[in-house]
Amino acid sequence: MFEQLPFATIDHLRPITQGHQEVIFCPDKTIGQVLAIAERLEAAGGSFLATRSDAGQQGALGARFPRAEINGLGRTVYLPPDPEPAPTAAVTARAFKNRVERLTDVGVAGIHRILTQTDVLRSATVIIVVAGMDGALPSVVGGLVKVPVIAVPTSVGYGASFGGLAALLAMLNSCASGVTVVNIDNGFGAAAAASRINHS
Amino acid sequence: MFEQLPFATIDHLRPITQGHQEVIFCPDKTIGQVLAIAERLEAAGGSFLATRSDAGQQGALGARFPRAEINGLGRTVYLPPDPEPAPTAAVTARAFKNRVERLTDVGVAGIHRILTQTDVLRSATVIIVVAGMDGALPSVVGGLVKVPVIAVPTSVGYGASFGGLAALLAMLNSCASGVTVVNIDNGFGAAAAASRINHS
Amino acid sequence: MFEQLPFATIDHLRPITQGHQEVIFCPDKTIGQVLAIAERLEAAGGSFLATRSDAGQQGALGARFPRAEINGLGRTVYLPPDPEPAPTAAVTARAFKNRVERLTDVGVAGIHRILTQTDVLRSATVIIVVAGMDGALPSVVGGLVKVPVIAVPTSVGYGASFGGLAALLAMLNSCASGVTVVNIDNGFGAAAAASRINHS
Amino acid sequence: MFEQLPFATIDHLRPITQGHQEVIFCPDKTIGQVLAIAERLEAAGGSFLATRSDAGQQGALGARFPRAEINGLGRTVYLPPDPEPAPTAAVTARAFKNRVERLTDVGVAGIHRILTQTDVLRSATVIIVVAGMDGALPSVVGGLVKVPVIAVPTSVGYGASFGGLAALLAMLNSCASGVTVVNIDNGFGAAAAASRINHS
Amino acid sequence: MFEQLPFATIDHLRPITQGHQEVIFCPDKTIGQVLAIAERLEAAGGSFLATRSDAGQQGALGARFPRAEINGLGRTVYLPPDPEPAPTAAVTARAFKNRVERLTDVGVAGIHRILTQTDVLRSATVIIVVAGMDGALPSVVGGLVKVPVIAVPTSVGYGASFGGLAALLAMLNSCASGVTVVNIDNGFGAAAAASRINHS
Amino acid sequence: MFEQLPFATIDHLRPITQGHQEVIFCPDKTIGQVLAIAERLEAAGGSFLATRSDAGQQGALGARFPRAEINGLGRTVYLPPDPEPAPTAAVTARAFKNRVERLTDVGVAGIHRILTQTDVLRSATVIIVVAGMDGALPSVVGGLVKVPVIAVPTSVGYGASFGGLAALLAMLNSCASGVTVVNIDNGFGAAAAASRINHS
Amino acid sequence: MFEQLPFATIDHLRPITQGHQEVIFCPDKTIGQVLAIAERLEAAGGSFLATRSDAGQQGALGARFPRAEINGLGRTVYLPPDPEPAPTAAVTARAFKNRVERLTDVGVAGIHRILTQTDVLRSATVIIVVAGMDGALPSVVGGLVKVPVIAVPTSVGYGASFGGLAALLAMLNSCASGVTVVNIDNGFGAAAAASRINHS
Amino acid sequence: MFEQLPFATIDHLRPITQGHQEVIFCPDKTIGQVLAIAERLEAAGGSFLATRSDAGQQGALGARFPRAEINGLGRTVYLPPDPEPAPTAAVTARAFKNRVERLTDVGVAGIHRILTQTDVLRSATVIIVVAGMDGALPSVVGGLVKVPVIAVPTSVGYGASFGGLAALLAMLNSCASGVTVVNIDNGFGAAAAASRINHS
Repeated sequence: MFEQLPFATIDHLRPITQGHQEVIFCPDKTIGQVLAIAERLEAAGGSFLATRSDAGQQGALGARFPRAEINGLGRTVYLPPDPEPAPTAAVTARAFKNRVERLTDVGVAGIHRILTQTDVLRSATVIIVVAGMDGALPSVVGGLVKVPVIAVPTSVGYGASFGGLAALLAMLNSCASGVTVVNIDNGFGAAAAASRINHS
Repeated sequence: MFEQLPFATIDHLRPITQGHQEVIFCPDKTIGQVLAIAERLEAAGGSFLATRSDAGQQGALGARFPRAEINGLGRTVYLPPDPEPAPTAAVTARAFKNRVERLTDVGVAGIHRILTQTDVLRSATVIIVVAGMDGALPSVVGGLVKVPVIAVPTSVGYGASFGGLAALLAMLNSCASGVTVVNIDNGFGAAAAASRINHS
Repeated sequence: MFEQLPFATIDHLRPITQGHQEVIFCPDKTIGQVLAIAERLEAAGGSFLATRSDAGQQGALGARFPRAEINGLGRTVYLPPDPEPAPTAAVTARAFKNRVERLTDVGVAGIHRILTQTDVLRSATVIIVVAGMDGALPSVVGGLVKVPVIAVPTSVGYGASFGGLAALLAMLNSCASGVTVVNIDNGFGAAAAASRINHS
Repeated sequence: MFEQLPFATIDHLRPITQGHQEVIFCPDKTIGQVLAIAERLEAAGGSFLATRSDAGQQGALGARFPRAEINGLGRTVYLPPDPEPAPTAAVTARAFKNRVERLTDVGVAGIHRILTQTDVLRSATVIIVVAGMDGALPSVVGGLVKVPVIAVPTSVGYGASFGGLAALLAMLNSCASGVTVVNIDNGFGAAAAASRINHS
Repeated sequence: MFEQLPFATIDHLRPITQGHQEVIFCPDKTIGQVLAIAERLEAAGGSFLATRSDAGQQGALGARFPRAEINGLGRTVYLPPDPEPAPTAAVTARAFKNRVERLTDVGVAGIHRILTQTDVLRSATVIIVVAGMDGALPSVVGGLVKVPVIAVPTSVGYGASFGGLAALLAMLNSCASGVTVVNIDNGFGAAAAASRINHS
Repeated sequence: MFEQLPFATIDHLRPITQGHQEVIFCPDKTIGQVLAIAERLEAAGGSFLATRSDAGQQGALGARFPRAEINGLGRTVYLPPDPEPAPTAAVTARAFKNRVERLTDVGVAGIHRILTQTDVLRSATVIIVVAGMDGALPSVVGGLVKVPVIAVPTSVGYGASFGGLAALLAMLNSCASGVTVVNIDNGFGAAAAASRINHS
Repeated sequence: MFEQLPFATIDHLRPITQGHQEVIFCPDKTIGQVLAIAERLEAAGGSFLATRSDAGQQGALGARFPRAEINGLGRTVYLPPDPEPAPTAAVTARAFKNRVERLTDVGVAGIHRILTQTDVLRSATVIIVVAGMDGALPSVVGGLVKVPVIAVPTSVGYGASFGGLAALLAMLNSCASGVTVVNIDNGFGAAAAASRINHS
Repeated sequence: MFEQLPFATIDHLRPITQGHQEVIFCPDKTIGQVLAIAERLEAAGGSFLATRSDAGQQGALGARFPRAEINGLGRTVYLPPDPEPAPTAAVTARAFKNRVERLTDVGVAGIHRILTQTDVLRSATVIIVVAGMDGALPSVVGGLVKVPVIAVPTSVGYGASFGGLAALLAMLNSCASGVTVVNIDNGFGAAAAASRINHS
């Protein structure tokens, strides 16, 4: 019965709603400035969107970030988020014969985005929450649903994130009871645990 | 002009909304079981509420927790939260001639409680957020408001909270940009910083 | 359907099978020697059994360890294991309306004791494994069963156990896929997670 | 007398028995998915076996993992385990004039594999156990034999393994008494210690 | 009103006043010695000035440090300081519509340089202090002014700086009350916090 | 010749100049508030001065802090600083036949207090700097003098001071070259090292 | 055959040869000074010898250190070293039917004391070295003998010894090959390992 | 007067006396084995000596270790020790006008090598001891001389050396009183401190 029920994978927590954090307004900046900000954003969140860029800025960003998608007409350069470990969790879960639904771009700094997904979250049999930085997302999700929540800390971040340690500790201390945790970046293990739940 | 504007102090994050975490239902438990659960709750959150307790349970809890308030008629034993460092911040801020408003019992595991306070939060000139455990509250508050947010990690917790280190790291990695942090339990410093902002 | 299935709680891992670790042979020892060894055993495993003790040794052990059970006729002094957090998990799980079966005195250093319990383990819907020291038990159990396994590191130990950190790290790095972990000593949280699984 | 007795070296602990952890079933996966899973397996255990791979998948894996052995007919790609420090221990021990027997592919998540080797283990004069991840293997081996057991933590792993720290701490807290430990990846030192034992 | 008030960004703390730390006197040194000292200075402070260098020394330094500026006539080789995160803070703050003034080359080992800037510091509405190594600068600045001080630890350094951890801890323990801290290298976050203060 | 030259011991760094940190203005506070602030100050700096206290406040502080000096007429309660390890260093140095001069109550948050002592500092043959919290004082002193500077981190502090670790790391990363460090609280060792210098 | 060969236990490393470290010359000191130095010595090495003490000093030391032995005639107060874990190792080893010889009061700061024991060390079949502080003793002993050396770090110390962590790390990094290590304070485990060696 | 007195720099501690640790006997080994052992030795001590090597082994070692010196006739390949930070200390000290004498290849595992240098050590006015791994050398030297000893931990090592942390902690806990410490790899700072002593 479990197999036909979805379980949701929430991707890297990224604070979209505050607006300025992932967007680079290029017109008033040198190439060096654009690159410096892009590198910072990439280090912090694995992603950025540069708008109103000129050709030089596009070229420099393209050379520095090979995964970046350049839209000459729209004058944008977009670096999609680093795919691991959330996709790993999704791929693994599907390989173990579970139905998977993914939510992305939710983050506790834009709390209303999570709340609009409450119905989807509550329809799952088990939820894997992948989050880096402050590791706060599992606590919020754990308070919204009654099903098992498995938290995956990611090594995304810099400085005092200490390679995912900050998120790991936050998740182990989650104020939502009943949240369990796997190793840093261990999307595989989270999916294996979710599959154990779905098939037990 | 700042002085007459309030700034809010959000107390120890405590997950009330899930119901079972802070409440001890006494009827089906021995004195030893009640004490064991009470000690665990006190260690985790500094507070508990025991309901439908009998006289023996009340006596044991009263002996073990001198701060506990026993209501014989209502058959409850209530341990109010550990007052530090949130009250320290409030007392200090008032001593430095700032107007203070305190919010308590908000927690990210019961996210709707925070959202109902959005208007109060947005009326402040600066917000001090005191939180232990996963240190997630400042990220949520920082996403709701545009004013300065000062995060105070507390040493409340056990195990992998490492005396407040987990909350400290989470706050330093807050996904809400513009959140700043002070030392663990340093409500005094947070109030001094808030006062600098209000009087600068 | 889950509710009427048991879930097993495996207690503090204690290496019974090697014989010499928890037993103090008293005849050839001074009171000071007996006390010194008892304190070491208590620190390491929370328990000991002193055999062929004389009255002076019994008195000294009784004074030092108030929980110890003295059997004057059998000439033994027995310190039963520290009950937390395994009983907490069991009490909590029952309070949340789950059926609970507990296994105790299993340890990876006496691997045959675990293997004789394989049938019981496989009949559970979810297993909570409470272990201190090397935190190895969840890996072995996780390899024996297909159901969800929730690991609870305990702060029992000394020296480089660092208050349960060694067991926590071992569990996060479990070589059995699909094991999830809660905070050190958080039997309450493990039971809450198990209950989420049983009632989802 | 010791020289003509063997001492066994147990290799990197790898959970073969659970089936899905080291094997990649290629048919239902894109090249990108196969690579992603292979990289994860390699990071976690230093090894993988891809089955039913097509030519494109074989080429991609071969380019990414130069040590991989491609079997076009059998449609497999096999990455043998990272040879250090277990071979280092074996080579060193032989150079110091000890007889060496190596056991590989035993792991506590597949406990029956170890048990079938009990006779070999008990015939050794000293045993070196090389293990990464949760560092649980020395505790199990230490409980099966009475001879000296020297544990070598390896830096294999990711996330909260912290470069072998998790395994090191687990081994120092082994619940099998009489297990001693050397530095992370120090197969050389373990062999030197074993040789001291054999020649003393 | 805040917008037209400056806020100062104090750059990487560098001990100029002691003279010998950042200057390499080349005449009595081999190329290898010059390179060795230059690498050490670069690692410690991100910058150096080599004087009276000959052509071979200039070539070697130029090859090793592409950012270095070679002055053949003056016989100097100058490596300007690593620009991050102080410029990031300045660029971000300007993008958020704040007026910015930067002070560089102040350090607590040359305390008089800071004191001569006291008037500038006191004219700011908020001060961002970027410092690595011992993280001592925010304490001194915090004692000189009454406005908010935001400290940014940098990952510049080596050995026991542990990637900025030493500076981070020092800043969290600042003896000047009212100093708040952001993550290591988070110039972006410091500017966002400063902007919150200026626009609240 | 060295023996007749003094060496200065600078005591626990305490930020006097900001006024509000060590002084408790009692009139507008309850006994509980006074005690709470006093305990915080004592934890942070080992000292406080309560002014305009009434008899009840004096009694409560006297009962809580037996070392406190109560001046009923002046209505003050003064807790002098914790004497270790600075006095230990002074006593030891004198026992080893060195001349000692002590400076106290200097701190980098009140930088002018240090500067007024520049002549005394420069007359010493070796200087021991005892400092807790941010450990910033040795860097400032090291920049003012040319003689050897030995830094002693103290375990005074709370939260992220981690028992003196913050000060220790700051001192090891001092931006003043030629500062050496001893163990946390090791005033004895600092004096022994200073004596080696004076007598070599 | 092994049983009749001794194995030596080297006690807590204590720097006797430098003279001033463990001896308190009382005549020129107040009671407070004597107590302060005694407490420091006890914290560092678990032992001290006060000479030429008067009655008041003797009384104060006796009250503060109940284990101290007062010799009124000889005017000395002697605190013998903390007995654990070296005696634990010796007692355990004897209980396991090994012959034991103990050496005490050897330390690397007085290297000649070790060298005079070289013959005794070389006559052992296995050596347990118990050392705290810098954990240097096993490296020296390991270089003097060819037999197995088991190192036991002790939690004696203060500050940056971090409860024995400094000694543990030093021993794991011993420059003498073939030294193995057990947990902090685990004299029991060291004896069990030594007994495995002697009886294998 | 100090300038004309030498101060000795003791190089990276390397255990020569045990024979097998730095020497690779090539005849019975494949190229892969020789490379594996050479890499381990290089990682541990920065140096090795391969004897009786054939041309293939020489070529492989030369390609892998460009600094290695190949002696075809003598059939040896020698990798001289990594020169930093000991030479940095020597170069810096000379640049600051101090007379320098260097001792190399001393190590506590070959204690007699140090003892034969006692006279040289005692003729210095200040001694800089550079040591990695267990950081034991400063304690031994500190016990042999009365002059100031400055310890420099190096980041040489692997595993639980944690980039020099093990040596740093050992040195801070030195059992020889009066040893002071500088940052990991900070040969520059040690020389600056030594120069302060010589010129004060």
